[in-house]
Amino acid sequence: MPLQPSKTIESFPNPHPNNTYTIRFHTDEFTTLCPMTGQPDFAQITVEYAPGEKCLESKSLKQYLWSFRDEGNFHEDVTNILLNDMVQACEPKWMTVTGHFNIRGGIDFVIVAKHVKA
Amino acid sequence: MPLQPSKTIESFPNPHPNNTYTIRFHTDEFTTLCPMTGQPDFAQITVEYAPGEKCLESKSLKQYLWSFRDEGNFHEDVTNILLNDMVQACEPKWMTVTGHFNIRGGIDFVIVAKHVKA
Amino acid sequence: MPLQPSKTIESFPNPHPNNTYTIRFHTDEFTTLCPMTGQPDFAQITVEYAPGEKCLESKSLKQYLWSFRDEGNFHEDVTNILLNDMVQACEPKWMTVTGHFNIRGGIDFVIVAKHVKA
Amino acid sequence: MPLQPSKTIESFPNPHPNNTYTIRFHTDEFTTLCPMTGQPDFAQITVEYAPGEKCLESKSLKQYLWSFRDEGNFHEDVTNILLNDMVQACEPKWMTVTGHFNIRGGIDFVIVAKHVKA
Amino acid sequence: MPLQPSKTIESFPNPHPNNTYTIRFHTDEFTTLCPMTGQPDFAQITVEYAPGEKCLESKSLKQYLWSFRDEGNFHEDVTNILLNDMVQACEPKWMTVTGHFNIRGGIDFVIVAKHVKA
Amino acid sequence: MPLQPSKTIESFPNPHPNNTYTIRFHTDEFTTLCPMTGQPDFAQITVEYAPGEKCLESKSLKQYLWSFRDEGNFHEDVTNILLNDMVQACEPKWMTVTGHFNIRGGIDFVIVAKHVKA
Amino acid sequence: MPLQPSKTIESFPNPHPNNTYTIRFHTDEFTTLCPMTGQPDFAQITVEYAPGEKCLESKSLKQYLWSFRDEGNFHEDVTNILLNDMVQACEPKWMTVTGHFNIRGGIDFVIVAKHVKA
Amino acid sequence: MPLQPSKTIESFPNPHPNNTYTIRFHTDEFTTLCPMTGQPDFAQITVEYAPGEKCLESKSLKQYLWSFRDEGNFHEDVTNILLNDMVQACEPKWMTVTGHFNIRGGIDFVIVAKHVKA
Amino acid sequence: MPLQPSKTIESFPNPHPNNTYTIRFHTDEFTTLCPMTGQPDFAQITVEYAPGEKCLESKSLKQYLWSFRDEGNFHEDVTNILLNDMVQACEPKWMTVTGHFNIRGGIDFVIVAKHVKA
Amino acid sequence: MPLQPSKTIESFPNPHPNNTYTIRFHTDEFTTLCPMTGQPDFAQITVEYAPGEKCLESKSLKQYLWSFRDEGNFHEDVTNILLNDMVQACEPKWMTVTGHFNIRGGIDFVIVAKHVKA
Repeated sequence: MPLQPSKTIESFPNPHPNNTYTIRFHTDEFTTLCPMTGQPDFAQITVEYAPGEKCLESKSLKQYLWSFRDEGNFHEDVTNILLNDMVQACEPKWMTVTGHFNIRGGIDFVIVAKHVKA
Repeated sequence: MPLQPSKTIESFPNPHPNNTYTIRFHTDEFTTLCPMTGQPDFAQITVEYAPGEKCLESKSLKQYLWSFRDEGNFHEDVTNILLNDMVQACEPKWMTVTGHFNIRGGIDFVIVAKHVKA
Repeated sequence: MPLQPSKTIESFPNPHPNNTYTIRFHTDEFTTLCPMTGQPDFAQITVEYAPGEKCLESKSLKQYLWSFRDEGNFHEDVTNILLNDMVQACEPKWMTVTGHFNIRGGIDFVIVAKHVKA
Repeated sequence: MPLQPSKTIESFPNPHPNNTYTIRFHTDEFTTLCPMTGQPDFAQITVEYAPGEKCLESKSLKQYLWSFRDEGNFHEDVTNILLNDMVQACEPKWMTVTGHFNIRGGIDFVIVAKHVKA
Repeated sequence: MPLQPSKTIESFPNPHPNNTYTIRFHTDEFTTLCPMTGQPDFAQITVEYAPGEKCLESKSLKQYLWSFRDEGNFHEDVTNILLNDMVQACEPKWMTVTGHFNIRGGIDFVIVAKHVKA
Repeated sequence: MPLQPSKTIESFPNPHPNNTYTIRFHTDEFTTLCPMTGQPDFAQITVEYAPGEKCLESKSLKQYLWSFRDEGNFHEDVTNILLNDMVQACEPKWMTVTGHFNIRGGIDFVIVAKHVKA
Repeated sequence: MPLQPSKTIESFPNPHPNNTYTIRFHTDEFTTLCPMTGQPDFAQITVEYAPGEKCLESKSLKQYLWSFRDEGNFHEDVTNILLNDMVQACEPKWMTVTGHFNIRGGIDFVIVAKHVKA
Repeated sequence: MPLQPSKTIESFPNPHPNNTYTIRFHTDEFTTLCPMTGQPDFAQITVEYAPGEKCLESKSLKQYLWSFRDEGNFHEDVTNILLNDMVQACEPKWMTVTGHFNIRGGIDFVIVAKHVKA
Repeated sequence: MPLQPSKTIESFPNPHPNNTYTIRFHTDEFTTLCPMTGQPDFAQITVEYAPGEKCLESKSLKQYLWSFRDEGNFHEDVTNILLNDMVQACEPKWMTVTGHFNIRGGIDFVIVAKHVKA
Repeated sequence: MPLQPSKTIESFPNPHPNNTYTIRFHTDEFTTLCPMTGQPDFAQITVEYAPGEKCLESKSLKQYLWSFRDEGNFHEDVTNILLNDMVQACEPKWMTVTGHFNIRGGIDFVIVAKHVKA
């Protein structure tokens, strides 16, 4: 069966739980639909986190990011949804999600959402 | 009726008031008139803020920035006016406004104004 | 009715048919699906042409480029389809279409297709 | 009297008519109104020419470019109008005008118009 | 069976044989062994060609480039071998192969080999 | 009377004394004479300050920077003189002056002088 | 005998143990195999550390980095292995290892692992 | 006696008159006075030529470029004067002089003057 | 007598001992010999310091940096020797010396040594 | 015996004499002495050629470039000497040598010498 978009983000056990380290990943390939006009929006997404007991699995991340392709999402909302979903998937020490949304009407937007483990 | 310049900045409720996040937007398309000579000035404007209960609505931002097109404004003054108006519109936790004004007489100016909620 | 993706590219009469000039437009926001795997592909598209009696209308260009979002297309094929469709829409003196497709498997592809009026 | 926008482009006699040379000037500060929506458009303008008996005077160029600030103009049209007006003002051996118009709807446009003396 | 390095480059029929176009691909991920010292060498490879009746298939290109990983190759030699093998695989109208080899002893090398169909 | 170089830096009242903000200006157009050889030196000057009750007036800044054109000045000395003069002119909360002096004998120099109000 | 890949990292005595200083080295030439697919992965590696009594010897570093060429390694794992091995070899005051892994499936990864002497 | 500005450009015999070669030199350090306002203008100057029997001597070039520091000169005029003087000094096969003058009133100018031996 | 390489670094009295400021200088022109192979090494050197009662004199710096041209020096050692010699010459409040050594064997090194006055 | 500077440039037989290709190499690591002052000069050297029956051997190139380290050489002269020596060593179809010499007195020089086989 071919790869499908999916809201499920898989994880794997942190291979070096006693080391202090961070993981950052970036994609230029994020697209959603504008909930006002239905037209495509495009963004660059960067995620950085300090893993706890779990790391995010990269293939499922690709499928997860793909799952927004046909949804309507506001910039501020979707960046926080990305954060909340990924935090839930791997319970990191901390995580930041940065969404850089392309120019519309002469203005571009960058949303940076941060989670710190309570 | 076509879109018009406007001094009104609209807001919408913060969709994730329990998350810690910032919003940054940038435009290369800001122009006013020099109050001394009446000639056009041009600037790049960057705004960054931590939303409280409200977020700035992007379409009204475009109209608001447009409203300075036919006004005479000094660099230091207009940057602070932008800050004061946007703070009033969304009551953020903090906000910075950066105005980068193009070269005149071999000198360019960058004004950075900051508000922190009392 | 909201804007829709469309295969129709509209044109308008060349406002300066006696002048010699070229028109180049560029977008970072082109996405299709891989016909082998069904996964999203992303590209930057640049079009340059010398108008004859007609110019391409920009709003319909946006809708036209959007129309590939849910289609499966090979790189070499879609770049030539873009060329053929735009040539048919405005009958230019000449036109080039450049598709710069993002890295897959460590390799990126750039296809440049050219039409010259017979 | 303060400087005003003006459609008049002044010239001065070529100080080295026996030399072969070109003059290129560039501004990031060109703005017009969209004739469809009335909203501001922004462009970077570059002009290059080989002077004949006259050179374009720089202060009047500033006033001339300023004169488009409150007019509605399509990209393809205004670039050619700039060319035609400047050619008439200095009768160069050849001239090119390049207008690079900022991103709208994810697409930016570059128009290059060229005149060669008959 | 997992993907393997391979000297076989596959092709597919040119989907637009009546169009005039070029294909350029690039990778930063080419490595061989120095035939003198046995130590790894690294290069960036760019290939550009005008397809005739056949186009190079991208997955087999990846396997083909991979096949040099454990071989000893001089810069000048391997760039020409890449050219000869790819020309044989797709019989293009013309093809250029550029190998940019990383700095050794303070000097970097760029080899550009070109084939034109007789 | 035409504009002249001048050691007088004028100021105007801070239009937003209750706001917290900074002013940065930069010029690529600073030149003095080397006090050892009498030959021209060139520098880029950047000034950043937090205004107190007064802001520096930009036209007089241009004349002030011009006033060093025919003077002999060592790099370390002139950067501090710029700081002292501008501090005296506007009594800022703090100010930094950065002088980036062009390469001489293969070496370039950057002097950064800082004043903080007592 | 020609140079060989090796898991042994040699060190030499810190020539200035009473000075406070850091050492950073960087290579664009790190390659491993993906443990899932067996295909080559490529990364840029940067190491920074404050030497204690020993410094890492550069020739053995080259051989050590080479030793991963034919091994299967996950990004998160190999970056931490690099850190652990180098820490063991020179017992630094602190060390960070940054692995920047090339784009796969539209996503690139950067892992930053840090050790501080207990 | 200290070095002085000078209108004399010295030359030395071409050391390789039988070789075909070009000489290009560039400075960021050219300044004159605006003949209209008396205020300083700044430019970057690039000269490229194919030497005939003589090459321009670099120390006298520095003094020659310095000699414009206190003169009033229009952009178009001074670029051609530079060309004419240097051509006279070394009688090259061909020479181009490019003057890139800093932004004034939002516009920068580039003058390129060319001489070819009759 | 022509200028010579020299191990003596001269200083001059700090012209503004009551100001707080830093001095940074940089050269791309540092070369030594590898003590293992005798072959030339090349580096970029940046020095930054807060002057106490003395500043480093720039002409003697050039001669001092030149004095390493024919010596064999390890990267870690020579960067610290530069620091120690310059600290002794001017007794700064603090000083950092950064040596960026060119790629050898695919790896480049950056050494940053810091002194703070006791 | 350790590697030594040498005026001898070795060659090896062109491995693909029937292919049309070029070889370009570049180094940032070329230094000579100024014949007027005895002080070090630094340059970046780029060589490009179309091999005939022989290719330049890279290790001997390193030794050859090294051989200028303690010689006095004028920019125009040494660039042509490099060309003449390399042409003699490999008898290429054509060759260009570009020497980019670092800024002295605010001016940098680029010499481009070209040989075409008679």
